[in-house]
Amino acid sequence: MEEAGSGKILTFLTDFGLDWGPVGVCRAVMAEIAPGVPIIDLSHGIPPFNIAAGAWVLAASLPFVPVGVHVAVVDPGVGTERLPLAIRTVRGDVLIGPDNGLLIPAAIRLGGIGTARKIANPEVMRHPVSHTFHGRDIFSPSGAHLASGFDFDALGDVILPADLVPAPWREPAYTEKVAQGEVVLLDNFGNARTNLETSKWPLNSGEQVLMDKGSGPSLELTAAKTFGDIKPGEGFVYNDSSDYICIGVNLDNAGRQLGLKPGQSLTIRRS
Amino acid sequence: MEEAGSGKILTFLTDFGLDWGPVGVCRAVMAEIAPGVPIIDLSHGIPPFNIAAGAWVLAASLPFVPVGVHVAVVDPGVGTERLPLAIRTVRGDVLIGPDNGLLIPAAIRLGGIGTARKIANPEVMRHPVSHTFHGRDIFSPSGAHLASGFDFDALGDVILPADLVPAPWREPAYTEKVAQGEVVLLDNFGNARTNLETSKWPLNSGEQVLMDKGSGPSLELTAAKTFGDIKPGEGFVYNDSSDYICIGVNLDNAGRQLGLKPGQSLTIRRS
Amino acid sequence: MEEAGSGKILTFLTDFGLDWGPVGVCRAVMAEIAPGVPIIDLSHGIPPFNIAAGAWVLAASLPFVPVGVHVAVVDPGVGTERLPLAIRTVRGDVLIGPDNGLLIPAAIRLGGIGTARKIANPEVMRHPVSHTFHGRDIFSPSGAHLASGFDFDALGDVILPADLVPAPWREPAYTEKVAQGEVVLLDNFGNARTNLETSKWPLNSGEQVLMDKGSGPSLELTAAKTFGDIKPGEGFVYNDSSDYICIGVNLDNAGRQLGLKPGQSLTIRRS
Repeated sequence: MEEAGSGKILTFLTDFGLDWGPVGVCRAVMAEIAPGVPIIDLSHGIPPFNIAAGAWVLAASLPFVPVGVHVAVVDPGVGTERLPLAIRTVRGDVLIGPDNGLLIPAAIRLGGIGTARKIANPEVMRHPVSHTFHGRDIFSPSGAHLASGFDFDALGDVILPADLVPAPWREPAYTEKVAQGEVVLLDNFGNARTNLETSKWPLNSGEQVLMDKGSGPSLELTAAKTFGDIKPGEGFVYNDSSDYICIGVNLDNAGRQLGLKPGQSLTIRRS
Repeated sequence: MEEAGSGKILTFLTDFGLDWGPVGVCRAVMAEIAPGVPIIDLSHGIPPFNIAAGAWVLAASLPFVPVGVHVAVVDPGVGTERLPLAIRTVRGDVLIGPDNGLLIPAAIRLGGIGTARKIANPEVMRHPVSHTFHGRDIFSPSGAHLASGFDFDALGDVILPADLVPAPWREPAYTEKVAQGEVVLLDNFGNARTNLETSKWPLNSGEQVLMDKGSGPSLELTAAKTFGDIKPGEGFVYNDSSDYICIGVNLDNAGRQLGLKPGQSLTIRRS
Repeated sequence: MEEAGSGKILTFLTDFGLDWGPVGVCRAVMAEIAPGVPIIDLSHGIPPFNIAAGAWVLAASLPFVPVGVHVAVVDPGVGTERLPLAIRTVRGDVLIGPDNGLLIPAAIRLGGIGTARKIANPEVMRHPVSHTFHGRDIFSPSGAHLASGFDFDALGDVILPADLVPAPWREPAYTEKVAQGEVVLLDNFGNARTNLETSKWPLNSGEQVLMDKGSGPSLELTAAKTFGDIKPGEGFVYNDSSDYICIGVNLDNAGRQLGLKPGQSLTIRRS
């Protein structure tokens, strides 16, 4: 049975939280437009307005998710001049969200930006469009229409990649011996997820590194493959399962134990 | 392929929290009775026993959700004399939940109460019916049976609207210059959501209002369309996207910054 | 339309939390392998590494869920020697997760362990298999392949039940007058959920019991059927809706009010 949107999935990420209704409303809007298309939540617990955390979760998750339409809303500028944006990636996905950098790291990991367009066509919006809930009125219905076969090229004018708001963090810098980036978020276990990419600066299992987090003394850490290679309570660095460098403590909370915080700059040196 | 429940959706709201299993059990019960019907979570993070917060989320969400069957459980009286209730709305929805006021504001917004019935028919229940988990044993299976085509009129006796427990808050009062209501909840961003309805007392963009929250000094606030019209850190009032009046602070937490709390009475005056 | 996996459901439980992406990634992996199979979340808020809490939620939930494939990941030993495990229950379910005791109490409640197998067949895994995210690379794809008709017997070698890691708590002990077990978790309402099974030591409505929680004075509590039988603010014990003994306080938080904590030993005596 071939049907509209068959073979596609929708993913959905916001900073709305799950407690007071808007995520369900957006899902209902999408379900009505694109019946039968699976809608998969990536997170609705991005810290309010934290574009970097949202960008990291998208970039860490989507390479392991089938090609689809990915709606993301972390949008402190709702109702202002910032553009609603759709990016077709080289892999074939469409990323939907505000033009504030949120979508860029994921787009790069999905092969790069193929074409970017402003979402301007009223046909893909819910009317009247509110001033404060573009998740419901622009982003969710746009994504659902695309997942149901709406033509990407009919969304609105092309935006040149150079005109897009860039990734919401300073670009990491890598030399042979030194990687400089930042802690983006602490996960549910307290592991510190960074924007340093293992494809660009892979850790070698067993090597010693020196980690400098901007303030306080440097930390000496071992690079390991997994938690079980390390004594309980001991810190280590590893190439995580999403191809970012991560700092963990076996069976404990690295953020708390090592004093790591989102937004902190991070320098890792090997000898 | 026409099938039982096709074209219907189920929504689901509780104060159970997502951490310990009951929401999943209810969803499994519904999925077995109504296979193929989408089940959309509105919230499972209603503060325990907070009927007003649950009522607000239902009333703020359902007008933007397709016609369907809406199961809601915030039920401090589980196992007591309070009736299990089904309300057919004028719009065509069925609301399912305890008769404690939870469903009333949403029913009014969905066109009003068409018919209300006690849920008494054992055919729509899971047996044995427990004393402490009517979400699993009465409300979820009733909702799923209705979404699969079970006859609303066969649920149980009619209850007259006047015999239902009323809305779980004092009815707001409006004059030309003054609106009196209450803060019902703080959302994920700290915005204070009220039970004052913009259809009855719309704010005019740019007007100044005086807000009195029962204790402490009155606040002077500007009415604006959206966050971006206001300086960062500044408070304002707006007609929110769900047709309630809301108090926000641009890029900050209004609850914390302005000392707003759920349950607080609220008077807004225009000059 | 008979299709792969039709009539089956997948359930999913982890300690990953919902805020940073991995649950969505696992759901996407499952959705791609087993399209059309409903995936029902039981919890992703199990406290990190708390195998006992995960085991309790599975055992309390699954008897009320249709026969299916149940994926559970609370896995402090990821990447170590601990085996990935699949248990076919006498009821006909398959439980998937690490061999650390997590699956055992649920298996017993689902009729007992029929056959247990190591998950070793690379056909049911995602490649490359990471060192730190077996939820994505082993457990979710295994579960989805089984829900789509993959042969259980082709997963890997049989493991004898006696060689499995046992339930993650001391076996409760019951005499006619005394039941000894432990508090496993506090639910969203603050009720203390125990590993004492009502089928083995049912409370009689109205009886008085003495509860000893290891430290502090013993508490005298009444056994009741439901919250409404007890004065607001008063503690009581009851046979809960999942066939475990539970300690509650009507309209209040039992954990806080009675000083109950997960992991605490608990002795209940009747006279």
